[in-house]
Amino acid sequence: MDIAILLFDRLTALDAIGPYEVLSRLPGAKVTFVATEPGVKRTDTGALGLMADAATADLPHPDILLIPGGPGQMALMDDEAVLSWVRGAHETSTWTTSVCTGSLVLGAAGVLEGKKATTYWAALEHLRGLGAEPVEQRVVVDGKIVTAAGVSAGIDMALTLAASIAGDFVAQTIQLGIEYAPEPPFDAGSPKTAPKESVDFIRAGSPRG
Amino acid sequence: MDIAILLFDRLTALDAIGPYEVLSRLPGAKVTFVATEPGVKRTDTGALGLMADAATADLPHPDILLIPGGPGQMALMDDEAVLSWVRGAHETSTWTTSVCTGSLVLGAAGVLEGKKATTYWAALEHLRGLGAEPVEQRVVVDGKIVTAAGVSAGIDMALTLAASIAGDFVAQTIQLGIEYAPEPPFDAGSPKTAPKESVDFIRAGSPRG
Repeated sequence: MDIAILLFDRLTALDAIGPYEVLSRLPGAKVTFVATEPGVKRTDTGALGLMADAATADLPHPDILLIPGGPGQMALMDDEAVLSWVRGAHETSTWTTSVCTGSLVLGAAGVLEGKKATTYWAALEHLRGLGAEPVEQRVVVDGKIVTAAGVSAGIDMALTLAASIAGDFVAQTIQLGIEYAPEPPFDAGSPKTAPKESVDFIRAGSPRG
Repeated sequence: MDIAILLFDRLTALDAIGPYEVLSRLPGAKVTFVATEPGVKRTDTGALGLMADAATADLPHPDILLIPGGPGQMALMDDEAVLSWVRGAHETSTWTTSVCTGSLVLGAAGVLEGKKATTYWAALEHLRGLGAEPVEQRVVVDGKIVTAAGVSAGIDMALTLAASIAGDFVAQTIQLGIEYAPEPPFDAGSPKTAPKESVDFIRAGSPRG
């Protein structure tokens, strides 16, 4: 089972690494980090380099493709090399997935036309302009397309996908393996529960994740 | 505020990237990924390369040090270059932190003597032999030492630390920024709630995370 995770400059690391940590534990999984040009990609903070080991051209038909988000997603929206890879991979994929604003790249590639999808909370309405039906939900499954909300939602998405692929027991064992029994110190992870000032602060900046 | 995150071969990526995603968003934070020898380190699955941009010798006195875990932690337990860096950094740090079996490295360096600490659930009893008092808790704060349970617990640890450093509002805004309103599909993230077969399966393998 070939799993291709797209890397690009100014991505948000956790968008990619959360799902990687889950999906790479699936029996038979072979995860490859890919980019248009292989090599080290710097994340949105500039503080971390992640290695893309292969070119997207080397993996035209992965079983699963995963597009993370982050400020660098903007540059992908009209990057024909990326969009045509996404289109081609989606044609033959078993699962086409995204985290955060990665779904906007799926949308720009045209694969969300008429599909239910989600993205980072502050970017949700952008999905509509790309032909998708935005759904305010942490994980959205529409056929073989699975999209996650912002950043940390990729972990929940990947566990959901793991259960679909390998059954509940495998997914539960992976969840125990990463000791995922979250205890956030605040109830601030959603615009519905966070302080209004936090919501305003993030809305005033550029959407990220 | 200098934050040094240790990388090494066969670490568990999420141990490092979860807290990085939170702590790098703190006002004034400068995160540097360090290793005894700079360069690309491969994670436990072999599928991901993370770049260590600096040598530990270049950052002897970070304000915060963070030691992630993973199978590669074993090799660090008697790696004097790593242990002496940890000891020296801890002498002057504001916060000394770990995720998962990273706390065993803190223990091997001698900095957990008489301290309350936690680690990956399957490795908890190993802390006692290193002079620490194991605590079955997701995040344990003892003075300036903050240890997290397995893998994904680093996110909760970092948000707790963010609140101590910069106040609740900043931590809440970061939590919203990474949309951390977890919805695990199963209640299987702890050995107390996971299927017994999952617990047995992981206990039979080598402790990881």
